[in-house]
Amino acid sequence: MNDEVLDSDVEEFRRAGHAAVEWVARYLERREELPVLSRVEPGEIAGRFDNAPPLHGRPMESLLDDVDRKILDGVTHWNHPGFFAYFAITGSQAGIIGELLSAAFNVNGMLWRTSPAVTELEQVVLDWLRQALGLPAGLFGIINDTASINTFLALAAAREQLGLDIRSEGMTGRELPLCRIYCSDQTHSSIDKAALALGFGFAGVTKIRSDSRYRMDVEHLRAVLEADRRNGVRSCAIVATVGTTPTASIDPLVQIGALAEQYGAWLHVDAAYGGSAAILPEMRWLWDGVDAADSIVVNPHKWMFTPVDCSVLYTRKPEILKETFSLVPEYLRTSESDVINYMDYGLQLGRRFRALKLWMVFEHYGLEKMRQVIAGHLKMARKLAASLAELPDIALMAPQSLSVVVFRRLVRNGAGEVDQEESDRATERLVERINASGESFVSPTRLEGRLVIRVAIGHGQTEWRHLERLLQVVR
Amino acid sequence: MNDEVLDSDVEEFRRAGHAAVEWVARYLERREELPVLSRVEPGEIAGRFDNAPPLHGRPMESLLDDVDRKILDGVTHWNHPGFFAYFAITGSQAGIIGELLSAAFNVNGMLWRTSPAVTELEQVVLDWLRQALGLPAGLFGIINDTASINTFLALAAAREQLGLDIRSEGMTGRELPLCRIYCSDQTHSSIDKAALALGFGFAGVTKIRSDSRYRMDVEHLRAVLEADRRNGVRSCAIVATVGTTPTASIDPLVQIGALAEQYGAWLHVDAAYGGSAAILPEMRWLWDGVDAADSIVVNPHKWMFTPVDCSVLYTRKPEILKETFSLVPEYLRTSESDVINYMDYGLQLGRRFRALKLWMVFEHYGLEKMRQVIAGHLKMARKLAASLAELPDIALMAPQSLSVVVFRRLVRNGAGEVDQEESDRATERLVERINASGESFVSPTRLEGRLVIRVAIGHGQTEWRHLERLLQVVR
Repeated sequence: MNDEVLDSDVEEFRRAGHAAVEWVARYLERREELPVLSRVEPGEIAGRFDNAPPLHGRPMESLLDDVDRKILDGVTHWNHPGFFAYFAITGSQAGIIGELLSAAFNVNGMLWRTSPAVTELEQVVLDWLRQALGLPAGLFGIINDTASINTFLALAAAREQLGLDIRSEGMTGRELPLCRIYCSDQTHSSIDKAALALGFGFAGVTKIRSDSRYRMDVEHLRAVLEADRRNGVRSCAIVATVGTTPTASIDPLVQIGALAEQYGAWLHVDAAYGGSAAILPEMRWLWDGVDAADSIVVNPHKWMFTPVDCSVLYTRKPEILKETFSLVPEYLRTSESDVINYMDYGLQLGRRFRALKLWMVFEHYGLEKMRQVIAGHLKMARKLAASLAELPDIALMAPQSLSVVVFRRLVRNGAGEVDQEESDRATERLVERINASGESFVSPTRLEGRLVIRVAIGHGQTEWRHLERLLQVVR
Repeated sequence: MNDEVLDSDVEEFRRAGHAAVEWVARYLERREELPVLSRVEPGEIAGRFDNAPPLHGRPMESLLDDVDRKILDGVTHWNHPGFFAYFAITGSQAGIIGELLSAAFNVNGMLWRTSPAVTELEQVVLDWLRQALGLPAGLFGIINDTASINTFLALAAAREQLGLDIRSEGMTGRELPLCRIYCSDQTHSSIDKAALALGFGFAGVTKIRSDSRYRMDVEHLRAVLEADRRNGVRSCAIVATVGTTPTASIDPLVQIGALAEQYGAWLHVDAAYGGSAAILPEMRWLWDGVDAADSIVVNPHKWMFTPVDCSVLYTRKPEILKETFSLVPEYLRTSESDVINYMDYGLQLGRRFRALKLWMVFEHYGLEKMRQVIAGHLKMARKLAASLAELPDIALMAPQSLSVVVFRRLVRNGAGEVDQEESDRATERLVERINASGESFVSPTRLEGRLVIRVAIGHGQTEWRHLERLLQVVR
């Protein structure tokens, strides 16, 4: 045996691998018995580990015991069918196998030649996904880790499209016109983060009012764009959302697209959560107006059964993305032409083989099954909203949309009027009771200053009985 | 059975999981029989798949057959012990198991409460890593996907540290002084990409000459910094590299750190590849001067047995990173104080449970074993350099450093002088012969305009016999 070689014994992997598969199978079987939200105190998990790294190793089977004893109760189980917080995400058995194989290959698909299958399977499966979603033909697709990154890439391309030579001349040492990003006050924080990172600053992000249904107010957008144009401000990009985080509201793409064209702004559509619903033919209306989009983000790792991370960026302007990011040093030059080297289309050089798990999800379940599950989520959300609406001291606080339901407890004073302060406190107590049950986990947010509870349905194992349990606590 | 539920049968996962473990074990056993560099033609892999997504699913076992028939020969095997291109990366059996468990948990560790174990195990294991590497106490650590992102985050913090209110006021609509990033002409392209994304532009990146050993020329750096100061240019950050990509050269941190302090620039140390060598006590000199570093990147997914992706950023100024990136919308507010919410320290909201695989690597192998393997790589690189130096028509083109060897074929004319053009062509033919062998994969680059071959040793399974095969082709 050569001491300078790692893993000289593949039999050891076999044993540990089979044991790990058993561990995972048991985890999947008992996930409903575990409390969704971890109950550990800060520092509790860290305190279970030594302060110094181990000098000598130990068998993997004993590490599985440690996962049970030291880690498991520190996990908030996003893989529990009662996880309704944030946006519920859902992996799948096929997705887990896909990740296992990816980890074994351990490739970096930065260039076509560094694993042609990584690039080509990505192209194949992103065209499948595009068809499944009913998006326009001809879109270029790329998988990245998160919607945060994909939005960042899209806004970077929008910045380059301004024609201000930002790639070559930069944004310092000269005065650029004020450049702005427009999005609604319901937009996800990742849009602000991307804009700040790209040097727009808070001064370069204008929040457009939303209407009574939490959709971007197109007249306000028009007024702001017009005022900015008169003042010499460059309109860089408009971000519209299909399925906002607070209420799953859907911005009016048709009108926003017309304004983007009129004012020369890049239109980015954040459908990270909501886009997956469009695999249902009856939900294709979500894309009305999407032809005008310069870029679209959809997250299969959110609501399409693919383990994190797998976020997809589609764009009809890949050449601008490439102009923004391509840099080919000598040590990365290759001779192939007519191939896509995905490193040219983004910030990150390293690329995991993420297409493999998405491919396995499509092949193992098939589109029909995926549609059934998502249709089930939509149906359960409607039923939950209807059930909540019947309760006397509960009010739905936004139109029920996609798989999200937003509500609040109402407390009335002696005169029968709603006491908003007391209602906030009662809603907060209700959140605590739900989350203390161990059977459901919801996350609150604020709408117009008032505390509300969001229920976001999205896990592949969620059935009506899980929502019944939530309803019981509410009742 | 409820048609609206995915994965109703965990037994199916058990069967497929065990089959997948067998598949991976056979892959690990036969990896040396596979050609390192894929031989497929562009389009060949894509052509094996249907144009449309499948409507109906099929068993996972049949997908494993497809991996064999349709995908495997399109993989360039980074997991082959003869992979010497770019920087060889190395996963491990423990790392594969870690990824399997992470995919099963499928959590998002954006906030402490969204899985306390993700945050706390990350803190524990990054302190282990810090100790293992001999880095200063008190550094804040965070795992991200790639060095590209970690460098980007570090330079974003450096930009914020300029005190120009870039987060609030942005970089447009006002004239900022010219701000610059300094790095050597040997620096990795990810530094340029980060600088371009952050709005410095090519105009805001100054490449410092390297000396005859490809280390940053400190006198040139001093002269540039001084001239820039006289001209009112703001020195934003200096990027020093411990283990450059072309030759694994090591920039002089002590002198660069002194200049960074003198000129008020953030010092970022790119040790993505080279840092791992510092787990050997005799290699701690790599960090001479590192106390002055504001941020350091080390990639366990490169040379520390952890599957991609796992890149670590250490900083002594986490508060500036947080000031740069923290944005907490209502739907992400939580009540815990005194916990780290890692989303506050970066661009990406989504966070996989990456600490788990790094923890498994430390626990399963132990530091002593990890040291033995890396010491073996260093020894093999020295031996390879010595063997190549003995060959009459081969010249080492850079001092042998860490696990990298850089050489070139020399062709002499009748007068015994080196014909550089012919040598380029002969070197190119040699690259082609090595890569056609199927037993080794090397990537060429250019040094001072001349084609050279890089051999980067870094896979946990590499033994001297693999380098012997490479030597045979060279001979």
